[in-house]
Amino acid sequence: MQGCRTLWRADEMMISGVVKEIEFVNKYAFGVDIGGTTIKLGLFDGEGNILDKWEIPTSKSVDGTQILPDIAVAIEVKLQEKEIEKSEVIGVGVGVPGPVDSKGTIYGADNLGWGVFNVAEILSSLISLPVKVGNDANVAAFGEMWKGGGEGYNNLVMVTLGTGVGGGIIVGGNIVSGYAGGGGEVGHIHIEDGEEEPCGCGNYGCLEQYASATGIVRLAKRRLMKDDAPSRLRSRKLSAKSVFDAVKAGDEVAMEIADEFGRYLGKGLAVIASVVNPEVFVIGGGVSKAGEILFDYIRPYFLKYAYRVCKDTKFVLATLANDAGICGAAGLILNNDK
Amino acid sequence: MQGCRTLWRADEMMISGVVKEIEFVNKYAFGVDIGGTTIKLGLFDGEGNILDKWEIPTSKSVDGTQILPDIAVAIEVKLQEKEIEKSEVIGVGVGVPGPVDSKGTIYGADNLGWGVFNVAEILSSLISLPVKVGNDANVAAFGEMWKGGGEGYNNLVMVTLGTGVGGGIIVGGNIVSGYAGGGGEVGHIHIEDGEEEPCGCGNYGCLEQYASATGIVRLAKRRLMKDDAPSRLRSRKLSAKSVFDAVKAGDEVAMEIADEFGRYLGKGLAVIASVVNPEVFVIGGGVSKAGEILFDYIRPYFLKYAYRVCKDTKFVLATLANDAGICGAAGLILNNDK
Repeated sequence: MQGCRTLWRADEMMISGVVKEIEFVNKYAFGVDIGGTTIKLGLFDGEGNILDKWEIPTSKSVDGTQILPDIAVAIEVKLQEKEIEKSEVIGVGVGVPGPVDSKGTIYGADNLGWGVFNVAEILSSLISLPVKVGNDANVAAFGEMWKGGGEGYNNLVMVTLGTGVGGGIIVGGNIVSGYAGGGGEVGHIHIEDGEEEPCGCGNYGCLEQYASATGIVRLAKRRLMKDDAPSRLRSRKLSAKSVFDAVKAGDEVAMEIADEFGRYLGKGLAVIASVVNPEVFVIGGGVSKAGEILFDYIRPYFLKYAYRVCKDTKFVLATLANDAGICGAAGLILNNDK
Repeated sequence: MQGCRTLWRADEMMISGVVKEIEFVNKYAFGVDIGGTTIKLGLFDGEGNILDKWEIPTSKSVDGTQILPDIAVAIEVKLQEKEIEKSEVIGVGVGVPGPVDSKGTIYGADNLGWGVFNVAEILSSLISLPVKVGNDANVAAFGEMWKGGGEGYNNLVMVTLGTGVGGGIIVGGNIVSGYAGGGGEVGHIHIEDGEEEPCGCGNYGCLEQYASATGIVRLAKRRLMKDDAPSRLRSRKLSAKSVFDAVKAGDEVAMEIADEFGRYLGKGLAVIASVVNPEVFVIGGGVSKAGEILFDYIRPYFLKYAYRVCKDTKFVLATLANDAGICGAAGLILNNDK
C-alpha cells in the first residue's frame, strides 16, 4: 500500500500544474463506510464528487471474516458496470466502527465480531488497490471538513450525537487517530462523578450517557419522574426528537431537559477545547436534526467552562448526514497530501 | 523566515547522506525560553547538544518592548564570543509564556506585559535569522520528546506541575498549538463542579486548582482543617514537597491528600486520553521531583476513568528539568521536518 501511494505521489510531482489537474479529474476513488447492519459504498471522481452510491448488508457470519471480501467484490462489480479500469482508481478509503491506528490496524470492533488486525493490508491484498482506513467517527469528521459543515477549517472537532456519542479530531487537516486508535473518543470523557448506571463501555459518568439520543431520553425520564409538572412529553413517546420538538413548542419541562443536556455537552466541549483548541465544533448525528436551537443550550455552558482563549470557538451543524462516512473515506485518498 | 527555511531544506536535499551529516554538525541553533523574571538562552550544535547556556533578566519596562531587542543583542554577543558566523546558524527557537499560534503570533502574555503580535516576525527582523516560536509549555513538551523523558515517542502529552499546571500535546511529532494558541492548556480543564474559590483564569474548578504545587497545598490545608488526625504536616511548612516527603514517611493524612491529588489528576489525564490518546504522559515541573511515587496515586484513578483503549498509556517523569524550554526551543529549529 505504501509503495502504491508513494508511486502516486511521485507521479504527481513529475507532472505540471494544469496537466496534473486534468489527470486528477480523470481518476476515481471509492469511499466505504462499514456499519453494524449495512456497508455504504460510494464512487467518487478526483474532485470528490459522488458519482454513485449504494449499500450492501454487513455479513456477520464467521466473526465478520466475509466483510472485506464482500467489499472487494462490490467494488470489482462496480468497476465492470462503469467500465472503469483499475489503473484509473487512486484508492479505497474505509471507515470502520472501532479504534484504528494511523497504519490501518483495528483494535477490535464489537459490532462486527472483529479482533485486532490490519484492515488496510488485507483489503488492499484482496482488491489490489491502495487502501487507507480510519475510525468511522474520525472519517466522518474528515468528510465534514472536506466537503461539509466544516469546509474551510482545518482545526476542527466533530461530535456525532447518535445512539452513542462519537467524535473526530482534526488538527492541521489531519485526523488525530491516537496511539491505540482512541483519538476523538469524546463520548467516553468522564463528565459526572455521581452516576450509578454504567455506560456501554463499562465506566460510569461518560458524556455519552447524557448527550446521545439515548442519553437525552434518560435525562427526560429522570426529569419527568422528579415531580408532576405538566409537560406534553408525558403523552408522547420519549426521544431526542420529541424532547426538542417540545422545546420548540415552549414546553418548560422539555427546556429544563435541554438545559441539562446542554450543561453536560457544553462542559465536555469546553474540556476538549482546553486540549486541542479547535476553530470550530461541527455537531452531527441524529440529535443534530433539532437544528441550531441546540447551540442555544450548549453555548452558555461552553462559555462558562471554557478557558479564555477558547471562548470564541464556533459551532456549526454537520451537513453531509449519512454521506459523511463515504465522503470522508474517499477524502482519505483524495485529500491526502494535497 | 519561510524563505530561509525553504532554502535550508533545498540545501539538505542537494547533498548526500554523509556530507549532509557533517554539514549538520557544523551548524548551530539557539534555544530561548522567556520567563517572567529571567530569559534562559542556549547555544546548540546541529545534533541538539548544549554547547553553552546562560540567562539574562527579563526587562518589563515599556510593556516588555525591550525583551526581543535584549535577546537579539545576547545572541549577537554570543556569536562574537564563540567566533560563529551568522551563516552557520540555522535559526532561533523561542518559548513564550502565553498562547501562540502556529505562525508565531502570541495572544497576550500577562507576565511580560505583551499584547497580540507576531513574535517570530519581529525577532527575525531584529536578528536576521529564521525564528520559530511556541508556547513555553508546548516547547518544553517538544524538548522532552526530542531529548528527555519522552524520547522515542511521537504521540505524547506533557503535564507540568509547577506553580500552575501547564501542558503540551504532541501528535505525530508536532506540537498541537490550537487555533488561538489554547492547545495543551490542560491546567484549565474543568474537573470539579462544586469549587467555590476561583482559579487564576477566572473559572471555577480547573485542574490547576488541585494538581499544581499550590493546589496540593490547598488540598492539604482543607484536609488538615477537617479534623484533628495526627500528622507531621501539622508541624511543618506546607508545600508539595513536604506533603510527598510525609507520604514517603508513611504519614496517613499526607497519603489521603496525595490520594485526593491523584484522583483529580488521574481523572484529568483520562479525559485528555479520550481526546488525543497519547502513547505516554510525561510528568514534569517542581511537583514531579517527588518521583515515581506520584504514579502510585495517579494511575489507579486514571485506570478508573479512562476509556478502555487508553488504559495502557504509559507514565514517565520528565528528565530535562530547567533545560526543557531551551532544548525544545532549539528542537523547533533542529528537529523540524526531519
